[in-house]
Amino acid sequence: MKRSIIDISEIDNPSFETGSVWLVGAGPGDPGLLTLRAYRSLHQADIVIYDALVSKNILQLVPAGVVLEYAGKRGGKPSFKQRDIIQRLIECSKSGKRVLRLKGGDPFMFGRGGEEALALAAENIPFRLVPGITASVGGLAASGIPVTHRTTGHGVTFLTGHGAGGNIPDSLDWKAIAAGAPTLIFYMALAHLENVAKKLIENGLSASTPSAIVANGTLANQQVIEAPLGKLAKVAIKEEIEPPAILVIGNVVELRKVLDPDVSPEKRREAAHKLAKKFDKIA
Amino acid sequence: MKRSIIDISEIDNPSFETGSVWLVGAGPGDPGLLTLRAYRSLHQADIVIYDALVSKNILQLVPAGVVLEYAGKRGGKPSFKQRDIIQRLIECSKSGKRVLRLKGGDPFMFGRGGEEALALAAENIPFRLVPGITASVGGLAASGIPVTHRTTGHGVTFLTGHGAGGNIPDSLDWKAIAAGAPTLIFYMALAHLENVAKKLIENGLSASTPSAIVANGTLANQQVIEAPLGKLAKVAIKEEIEPPAILVIGNVVELRKVLDPDVSPEKRREAAHKLAKKFDKIA
Repeated sequence: MKRSIIDISEIDNPSFETGSVWLVGAGPGDPGLLTLRAYRSLHQADIVIYDALVSKNILQLVPAGVVLEYAGKRGGKPSFKQRDIIQRLIECSKSGKRVLRLKGGDPFMFGRGGEEALALAAENIPFRLVPGITASVGGLAASGIPVTHRTTGHGVTFLTGHGAGGNIPDSLDWKAIAAGAPTLIFYMALAHLENVAKKLIENGLSASTPSAIVANGTLANQQVIEAPLGKLAKVAIKEEIEPPAILVIGNVVELRKVLDPDVSPEKRREAAHKLAKKFDKIA
Repeated sequence: MKRSIIDISEIDNPSFETGSVWLVGAGPGDPGLLTLRAYRSLHQADIVIYDALVSKNILQLVPAGVVLEYAGKRGGKPSFKQRDIIQRLIECSKSGKRVLRLKGGDPFMFGRGGEEALALAAENIPFRLVPGITASVGGLAASGIPVTHRTTGHGVTFLTGHGAGGNIPDSLDWKAIAAGAPTLIFYMALAHLENVAKKLIENGLSASTPSAIVANGTLANQQVIEAPLGKLAKVAIKEEIEPPAILVIGNVVELRKVLDPDVSPEKRREAAHKLAKKFDKIA
């Protein structure tokens, strides 16, 4: 393996104080998508408390001598309570450790980073937030699906497929969701996929809307399936898609024919000419 | 300045081939929020073609010997045409260079990365997408505003304040936008701030909805203002907020009282106790 050394002395690197907690986003899974600050913090921490969505490839980067502690939560499986995790963060920081709370994706995009930060603040514990690339933006990019595309519309809505009790949140206004933005992205949507698709179709989306699921995006075991919204749940079962998975709905999915890194150059070029006519009147 | 050397040999680093284009997200501005892959690509490129939203601090990291070329676009100012930028990417890659197309934020979150990739594919030019932390997630984190918070609702909608002609897109369904997700985030919203607020209030949002603008988020010249939605445009003018700026609307803004890094520890603790009652019934 070729050694790759990078020098980040030019960059303003805040110091990781003892007795503080850093809430750090690990990004979608590919270690190359860690931020410089996140990577550096792995080497400065005394203890890394990580959740189920942090990839093994990233955990392997934690140096020997830094304590690695699992405090994961995963929908539908027995898991740590949020209260226990917070208690552990408080204990470790009060004992004078540099505590790195490492979360898959971004701590503030469905990562419950806000709750943990509030609890730390109430105990007068200093904390710092280090954002990460959120799982959907990273995972979809790796599968050739842009989150937005200028000619397919002007926005995107991100939702979670899990409410507090593990079900789809009751409070969702499906009609507004279906009409509000041309791309819809659901985190942790696998368990409720059929129901989510049904609700959206009942509330205005066509059953033929291009849709895809990306599981373990950016990792070696990445799985991608593509199907019209009305058929996606069946395909997901047939293809045995495993969580964690991102659901994306909208015309952006069609761009995968060109942007998927695994398409052959010939097919890519052909698809690009076809799609350019459909999608792009470049200004 | 303390030297900081980091060794990324353990990480799978794809090689930057001659004659290819990498579409790379530079993140919100703070160089510490560059990904390892983006940082490394700055050192491997022959030419970096960057846009107006890439921060000076990041451009300063480009080593001497790598050509730095501006190809920016900024709403309301004379700017390069997208067609010219694409032409330049094609020319440079066809001449055998490693072309780094560096974009503020993430190339697929309102970054027009998809258009550029389609054009490259049509010319059979190999490309790779390197996602970045999108400007809003990064900038809001730096100002203590979580994009989502579990008890304020289950989603977030991101929209652009600029349509193809520089105006607010006509196609927006304001009623659906107002009702669809509890957090709304607009990119490049400054020019149309008053109109955006008016439309949202006419379509169901309360004029008292907590709102904020973050300009130049994560950078030394970061500006943050906070006001109820109905008053935000006036405050923005009074405080002379400069673009680029992110507009965020929703109860998440209230969490800034605790999460803003500039709040004093005493005020933070007090606010945390108050807000914990309001926002968090921790499961």
